[in-house]
Amino acid sequence: MANKLTIGVLSSGGDAPGMNAAIRAVVRTALSNNIDVLGINNGYEGLINGDFHSMNERSVGGILQRGGTILLTSRSKRFMEPSGQRDAIRKMNEAGINALVVIGGEGSMNGAYALSQKDIKVIGIPGSIDNDIWGTNIAIGTDTAMNTIMEAVDKLRDTASSHQRAFLIETMGRNSGYLAVMAGIVCGAEVVLIPEVPTTTDEIAAAVEDAYKRGKTHAIIINAEGSGIRTTDLATRIDDLDVGFKTRMTILGHIQRGGSPTAYDRLLASRMGVKAVEALLEGQHGVMTGLKSKGIDFIPLLDVISNKRKVNMEYYHMTKVLAR
Amino acid sequence: MANKLTIGVLSSGGDAPGMNAAIRAVVRTALSNNIDVLGINNGYEGLINGDFHSMNERSVGGILQRGGTILLTSRSKRFMEPSGQRDAIRKMNEAGINALVVIGGEGSMNGAYALSQKDIKVIGIPGSIDNDIWGTNIAIGTDTAMNTIMEAVDKLRDTASSHQRAFLIETMGRNSGYLAVMAGIVCGAEVVLIPEVPTTTDEIAAAVEDAYKRGKTHAIIINAEGSGIRTTDLATRIDDLDVGFKTRMTILGHIQRGGSPTAYDRLLASRMGVKAVEALLEGQHGVMTGLKSKGIDFIPLLDVISNKRKVNMEYYHMTKVLAR
Amino acid sequence: MANKLTIGVLSSGGDAPGMNAAIRAVVRTALSNNIDVLGINNGYEGLINGDFHSMNERSVGGILQRGGTILLTSRSKRFMEPSGQRDAIRKMNEAGINALVVIGGEGSMNGAYALSQKDIKVIGIPGSIDNDIWGTNIAIGTDTAMNTIMEAVDKLRDTASSHQRAFLIETMGRNSGYLAVMAGIVCGAEVVLIPEVPTTTDEIAAAVEDAYKRGKTHAIIINAEGSGIRTTDLATRIDDLDVGFKTRMTILGHIQRGGSPTAYDRLLASRMGVKAVEALLEGQHGVMTGLKSKGIDFIPLLDVISNKRKVNMEYYHMTKVLAR
Amino acid sequence: MANKLTIGVLSSGGDAPGMNAAIRAVVRTALSNNIDVLGINNGYEGLINGDFHSMNERSVGGILQRGGTILLTSRSKRFMEPSGQRDAIRKMNEAGINALVVIGGEGSMNGAYALSQKDIKVIGIPGSIDNDIWGTNIAIGTDTAMNTIMEAVDKLRDTASSHQRAFLIETMGRNSGYLAVMAGIVCGAEVVLIPEVPTTTDEIAAAVEDAYKRGKTHAIIINAEGSGIRTTDLATRIDDLDVGFKTRMTILGHIQRGGSPTAYDRLLASRMGVKAVEALLEGQHGVMTGLKSKGIDFIPLLDVISNKRKVNMEYYHMTKVLAR
Repeated sequence: MANKLTIGVLSSGGDAPGMNAAIRAVVRTALSNNIDVLGINNGYEGLINGDFHSMNERSVGGILQRGGTILLTSRSKRFMEPSGQRDAIRKMNEAGINALVVIGGEGSMNGAYALSQKDIKVIGIPGSIDNDIWGTNIAIGTDTAMNTIMEAVDKLRDTASSHQRAFLIETMGRNSGYLAVMAGIVCGAEVVLIPEVPTTTDEIAAAVEDAYKRGKTHAIIINAEGSGIRTTDLATRIDDLDVGFKTRMTILGHIQRGGSPTAYDRLLASRMGVKAVEALLEGQHGVMTGLKSKGIDFIPLLDVISNKRKVNMEYYHMTKVLAR
Repeated sequence: MANKLTIGVLSSGGDAPGMNAAIRAVVRTALSNNIDVLGINNGYEGLINGDFHSMNERSVGGILQRGGTILLTSRSKRFMEPSGQRDAIRKMNEAGINALVVIGGEGSMNGAYALSQKDIKVIGIPGSIDNDIWGTNIAIGTDTAMNTIMEAVDKLRDTASSHQRAFLIETMGRNSGYLAVMAGIVCGAEVVLIPEVPTTTDEIAAAVEDAYKRGKTHAIIINAEGSGIRTTDLATRIDDLDVGFKTRMTILGHIQRGGSPTAYDRLLASRMGVKAVEALLEGQHGVMTGLKSKGIDFIPLLDVISNKRKVNMEYYHMTKVLAR
Repeated sequence: MANKLTIGVLSSGGDAPGMNAAIRAVVRTALSNNIDVLGINNGYEGLINGDFHSMNERSVGGILQRGGTILLTSRSKRFMEPSGQRDAIRKMNEAGINALVVIGGEGSMNGAYALSQKDIKVIGIPGSIDNDIWGTNIAIGTDTAMNTIMEAVDKLRDTASSHQRAFLIETMGRNSGYLAVMAGIVCGAEVVLIPEVPTTTDEIAAAVEDAYKRGKTHAIIINAEGSGIRTTDLATRIDDLDVGFKTRMTILGHIQRGGSPTAYDRLLASRMGVKAVEALLEGQHGVMTGLKSKGIDFIPLLDVISNKRKVNMEYYHMTKVLAR
Repeated sequence: MANKLTIGVLSSGGDAPGMNAAIRAVVRTALSNNIDVLGINNGYEGLINGDFHSMNERSVGGILQRGGTILLTSRSKRFMEPSGQRDAIRKMNEAGINALVVIGGEGSMNGAYALSQKDIKVIGIPGSIDNDIWGTNIAIGTDTAMNTIMEAVDKLRDTASSHQRAFLIETMGRNSGYLAVMAGIVCGAEVVLIPEVPTTTDEIAAAVEDAYKRGKTHAIIINAEGSGIRTTDLATRIDDLDVGFKTRMTILGHIQRGGSPTAYDRLLASRMGVKAVEALLEGQHGVMTGLKSKGIDFIPLLDVISNKRKVNMEYYHMTKVLAR
């Protein structure tokens, strides 16, 4: 006879708005199926340390609207070593945890895959504000981050118009231009700088000057942090070149990671949390929940970590048409 | 040789946040392809009256973030008659408009289909805050409306917990429970009332009482306006039955139609606006843009108006599991 | 030698955003002066029941931005009786509480005064979203409520203009028109209905018709719940009279009580919390903190409960000039 | 017989949310008193160029909720010279403008005083997001800026707690610590750095380490741009010293100047706009409207520009008590 399931749930890596909604969905779906749930604090670090606590329906009350993650998170160096993974498995066995739900980004899925190779039943749930995880159309937290950027840029627009100014906004995205490109479309940015498309400060200055000549009352430049051009340098350069607008700079930083999750992220996280538990019940594991055309699908963790997500260049070109 | 295109664009029916983003995308995509665009005021009513004006890149500057529609909208009774449609076509011919983009809801797509039957090249773009249009996963404005409801309910939660109260929130949705169900998931509602699932006040009172007994500090009840149960009546009834919580009522009304569009709605509207013009350029018409698994697709207007969108009951059941 | 102080703190009556900021300021100011603090749950009800718990710096961590009150609140009938007050004093003595901070509205100040008459050292802090407490320019929570109303009406404006509509918004204010008048100014309302100024539906309809004739694209009507005119009745009547605009209704309800407190409310609450403890240290009691010209002042509780705050009619007239 | 008044209105210097509300109040109050109003574009620069346009009630429709200023603004070097002022007066005479309302900051009040010395009837209205104008308790725009900072820091809090992090937030305030101190109170910052209180990176690091030891899950450090310590340098230094928290940086920039004005700013701006026109009607000029204990008062422009506003150190000390 199959063992009764006891699910451990953890969040790992950079936190993303909506992770709490996913935790809540995992816990309540499990409990409604008479499955016990243990919360694991501080990600894989807590897994190694056996930092577990039993969760009931009330443990996840009032967290749906909170940013961050009540289970805390960390990046664990110890877990990258076989010895760390061995210790983690031992602690899981001691506590009777025989299935694990891991909510996190690309690095977290690597850890999940490593455990699945050691016969642990793992399901991953993708959480990432810059949507850089292969295998899902969108990750938990991206929609909230996009709205946060957008609201910041909206605030700049009126003041930009009053003064004939250019604004430089640095967004997250060390390896991926996704957030910057999407923000470019929804904010009506004149210029978008991303890691995938190398450019020069002179080209950017020319684009800004062109916007000025076309009669724009302001220019919005969105710079992904991994674009290769430093925001501070660019601000200085554009001012030196005197393109018509004076330049001002905003670095959003971790504001993009925070805030109450949007409806979209709460819904996505809830759906993925429900499906993760249902999948475990049906005997599936070694996979990540992914939003696909037909709904929530299950993607082998090996595929997730073996592929690199690419930014859709169609959107990049759209920013140019729409900013005319 | 084919005639050069001149596109007319109008918004019609109930307005939805993101319509301006769609108008902007239509205008700028057209202009970047050297196509002229005429804006039509007040929907089909303006089409009959020849209330047209030429649009350039600056006509749509600074509107991306605005709710409502700069082209205004109306519900036109005259256009439901053949004589109204005939007058509209005459005005279009006089102004040289040989293609039309119609942004609106189900009723607007009916009008678009009627024109397409009279050899007018029409493309529809779906805008509807309660997502009741067949042929697209989601319509422009729905995401913003969902977030508006959610933010209102989030405000109720803290005060609800402080006082041990039940809150009744009436949302839009005369024929469709979509908004109410989705809001139910993202707000963590204990009870959701929709047109598709008949229920009684006694059943609702029992569900609220059950939440009280389970130790909930408050209860959230979302009532779609077309559920068959009047919000005011329900409030009185629950208070009479004394279920543990005192009841308070909120009727959101047209707040759900307003506000600056979310990132999701701006992106969806921009994509649909771009694709609508590209489709006309490629000779396609008589269709509506629809968000499908593979991206923006084109759905025959006849199919759009011949089918009824149904609420996904899987989501309805999810509200019950997640609210435990 | 004077007894060492042990302060009890409670919130009572209707909750208001910023109450948590006041609790946090009381606790941390007390602790930094080596005074013990006991939190009292559920207002005067908890005082009677001896529902007390010791508070330290971490007890009030992370609550500054939360609406509602972590100490919960209630309206206590028992405390209105001498026997209830007697039991409360007994419980205070048993727990060693020899000074009390009461955060709440007019009714709560009545209770505070009653205790002060029985030789309990009490300081009141005014919290009320409709600013109906005499003795302070403004109470904690009013600024947040005003912004909540304003943001709701802002959402209505774009959609109103798109459709040529009149909007009826019902705000709180059973006895006081303060919120409605102030909201009228900051929302640019065409008509404001308050308890202090009796009016008829015909006068209102005439004002709306006048706005239509002057070329306004919409009309905003704000109705305090105690104005004497029911919102639902008014909506029907204006539509019957056909004044040019179609009418839509919003009842905000307890949304006005919720939400994260504004900067103004957090600042006001923090200042009042600090000053309340400092006053007790200096031997003052039987007073309420009040925002006055020179800063935070102390108003005898007897004066607070013996006077009625009146709406400033200058503001009422300002709504008429500004809405032209 | 006295000449009929014709009022010119301009905004100048850095824009601030609420300036449009002030313009609207000036225009509508003037018109309701049968006074003509000319809008002047681009501040003193437009005054010199005669860039004037007649304004009616509809000119200021729908601007109450908009950030920025519809009259645009600039910093005019020409106007600092007597020749520029002479040209401006000539243009005013040609257009029949015999009274001027100037909405702006300290520099703008200098210009207003210069004109008043040349027999022009001027009234100033203070607009400044960092509240650095002497003669008014608070200037238009400060409340909105404070809320913008607060909402940004609120977003950081959850993510900070999830990760045990310290956050550095750079706010405006080149010469004044007002915004930073007030933000410190309302955001619950552990450390506030302002121009008025010199400090060292080592002291800051010690304060952060102390917060870590006291059990805080995160630390918030607010740095006014004129504090003398560069935000980028401080971030590096704290990370080098290893105080327990990892550090992340946010530079808000002009986001603080933007956004829809809060209720407080709309109300203050409306009151000042109304009073400015009433004062001109009563023969007063050469003054600035100031919020004082008794309401809106009139402060001689000479006093305004001769005094320096100082930050209230009581608030600075309050940040230390409240952050325990």
